[in-house]
Amino acid sequence: MENAGCTHAWRTLAEKPRTMLVNFTKMVIKLGKDDPRRIIHSFKFGLALVLISILQYFRPSFYAFGDNIMWAVLTVVLVLEFSVGATLGKGLNRVLATGSAGALAVALRKIASYSGDKGKVVLTSVSVFFVAGTVTFMRFSPRLKARYDYGLIIFILTFCLVSLSENSENDLLEIAQERLLTIIIGSCIAITVCICIFPVWIGQDLHNQIASNVVKLADFLEGFRDEYFNNLENTAEAENDKPFLHRYESILSSKTSEETMAVLARWEPCHGRFRFRHPWKQYLKIGNQIRLCAYKIKALSVFLLRSDTTPHEFRSRIEEPCTNIIVESGKALKESSVILKSMAKSPMPNPHVANAKNAAESLKSLLRTNPWEGADHLEIIPAATVASLLIDLIFCVEKICEAVDELANLANFVSSELLHRGTVQPISYNDGSVHVISVAE
Amino acid sequence: MENAGCTHAWRTLAEKPRTMLVNFTKMVIKLGKDDPRRIIHSFKFGLALVLISILQYFRPSFYAFGDNIMWAVLTVVLVLEFSVGATLGKGLNRVLATGSAGALAVALRKIASYSGDKGKVVLTSVSVFFVAGTVTFMRFSPRLKARYDYGLIIFILTFCLVSLSENSENDLLEIAQERLLTIIIGSCIAITVCICIFPVWIGQDLHNQIASNVVKLADFLEGFRDEYFNNLENTAEAENDKPFLHRYESILSSKTSEETMAVLARWEPCHGRFRFRHPWKQYLKIGNQIRLCAYKIKALSVFLLRSDTTPHEFRSRIEEPCTNIIVESGKALKESSVILKSMAKSPMPNPHVANAKNAAESLKSLLRTNPWEGADHLEIIPAATVASLLIDLIFCVEKICEAVDELANLANFVSSELLHRGTVQPISYNDGSVHVISVAE
Repeated sequence: MENAGCTHAWRTLAEKPRTMLVNFTKMVIKLGKDDPRRIIHSFKFGLALVLISILQYFRPSFYAFGDNIMWAVLTVVLVLEFSVGATLGKGLNRVLATGSAGALAVALRKIASYSGDKGKVVLTSVSVFFVAGTVTFMRFSPRLKARYDYGLIIFILTFCLVSLSENSENDLLEIAQERLLTIIIGSCIAITVCICIFPVWIGQDLHNQIASNVVKLADFLEGFRDEYFNNLENTAEAENDKPFLHRYESILSSKTSEETMAVLARWEPCHGRFRFRHPWKQYLKIGNQIRLCAYKIKALSVFLLRSDTTPHEFRSRIEEPCTNIIVESGKALKESSVILKSMAKSPMPNPHVANAKNAAESLKSLLRTNPWEGADHLEIIPAATVASLLIDLIFCVEKICEAVDELANLANFVSSELLHRGTVQPISYNDGSVHVISVAE
Repeated sequence: MENAGCTHAWRTLAEKPRTMLVNFTKMVIKLGKDDPRRIIHSFKFGLALVLISILQYFRPSFYAFGDNIMWAVLTVVLVLEFSVGATLGKGLNRVLATGSAGALAVALRKIASYSGDKGKVVLTSVSVFFVAGTVTFMRFSPRLKARYDYGLIIFILTFCLVSLSENSENDLLEIAQERLLTIIIGSCIAITVCICIFPVWIGQDLHNQIASNVVKLADFLEGFRDEYFNNLENTAEAENDKPFLHRYESILSSKTSEETMAVLARWEPCHGRFRFRHPWKQYLKIGNQIRLCAYKIKALSVFLLRSDTTPHEFRSRIEEPCTNIIVESGKALKESSVILKSMAKSPMPNPHVANAKNAAESLKSLLRTNPWEGADHLEIIPAATVASLLIDLIFCVEKICEAVDELANLANFVSSELLHRGTVQPISYNDGSVHVISVAE
């Protein structure tokens, strides 16, 4: 009996690491599947470090002397990032900050050396306190923090290291030169590995993310139309199975990541169809407009779930113009996403926005005739709210399309006739005749 | 003449640095005024580095030998952060990662030393490649990244430095010991300075931010009531002068910063009225509910600006129940913020939520009677939308109050009778009688 208990205990003990291993493997597979570039980046990281060490084996004098390889390793570990923009930014920051801080510190040491032993201690302490304090304070400035945070840290670090080093002035100059060289070698290896082996361009990522966010909005609108105007009662229960109704939610909190990406993208050289001075700031403008649209969609989505919603009969009375608004807005958004994806300017202004506006006018004139004659006022207010929010949404969609067109001009997207193989007929919904769909009660 | 031009050129040349200096000074003053703790932090940073250097002057043997002071400086510069949570997290990460990576690297070197010169090179390269690649991949895991990112970088760094160092094994153990000691000294100085001199507790900041965000929502609602139901036509123009209508907008993009703060707060020890295991995750829940409410408010704010808004006469017909909803929701939110600020549990459930719900019922019965008899349907739809969004808003407010109550229970806020010096009368707006305010036309 005791033996069996013992075996059981052993089994449980053996089980725990196994489940942990299984969970770990699952996590690894998921991380790799979500973005296979992560696996490549890990390989690149290992490779860069092996390159650093190989240089040492083949030519022992390469890193000048002793532990100088340390600075190359440190540089690669801290500089090599997932994207080219981040790596270039950090590499340049590191080299410039090391150079300028080293020069300043050596100059101050030279001055301090004329003022006796005690004076030297006091001068060094005061200069370290003053420089570290000032630069730390500068790091709080949002503008400096966004682009030069890493450089400012390295500036403090190098300044303190050189100031507090115990080597004599003459040795120091030599050491400083060699270290700067080692840091430059490290930065070059990091940047080379980052750019030459499957580079990840953060600018491209930002571009793709903005384009896919526009599509997410269009997908929600399409889904909303199907859900809101169909006659099924069980929308609330089946709602979890419809991912397109939730996909847009990632947009709501995308502001910080977009801003970071735009800052990093500015470091990247010309790549693919992106110039060095690609108008990255315009992407932030588009992103803001997309978010404003997403906030409205969030307000709209409530009406898919509410229990006190308008009966289908009354909903269907405004179905036609509402559907037209949704369809045309969705088309306008998709058109904008095509402009982004193909990086080809549309030859004419987006016709779907005008169509959506016409549909809105048509909805307004329908509403003026009171389509819900005889209904309980309380029951129709949710439907009226949906109509009102949809009309409001068109302004957002228009702003997004305008921002995308502005980007196409700023970035000189090529003009393409291919985008419009079919022509879009401008539809006038506002022809006075109001189509009320009569529903058999 | 030439002389005058020359003087002018000189003046312009002298002017530019002056304007730059003036702008710089303005920026510095603004940064300091926004949060005076930034100035204190800069002093602390300088002080910690001076402490490091003074230790060396007073006992030259303190950092064991030569350039070991470098590691103490490096540790202070990289570990000392604005808040206690960030500093503690980085300090612990650094010490643990350095220790474990150093031990692993030394062990691997021992094994490699048995396999001849060529075998050693191959083994070292393979282990560096494998460890660096694996740890880099682990950094992509969001859970590990949030808490241990810095530790993982330091792990790679230390492992590579020890593996690639040219010192012999015996020297290495000694060096490693001394470096670990120096790093511990650096971490201790950084943590001591951070905690002992005007500490910035990030947990307290998160707590205050959530409380002030709740107040921002309440302020908007009050402002909305005054703006929407007053009879002035020039709301759109004067709108820029009303900061309370925009203050809530910072909430919309606060998700990332709140999450970071909650992660860092978990490192902080007991301070003020916060325990070590304070339920920081609950703050994220409250924050999410606050954001959902802010999205709705964003949708509501559109109706302050729209040109095709309902005439004041029709708006005033739903003024009373709407005002009641707004006032009671605002009071409920302020009550929650008082619970947060005073950290004192309310003895009874929030009565204002119930009052707001009663007001909503009253609004619904008013709407059922069609208060806008004879009005143009298109004109009243915006007002109906406002009514509908306000009714919807109550659910959000209730969720916020519930989440705050939950926090009060989880964190064992003291029960306070002081919170309710006056008693709140539950008001039944739903008494059947509908108050229609007749407006002189």
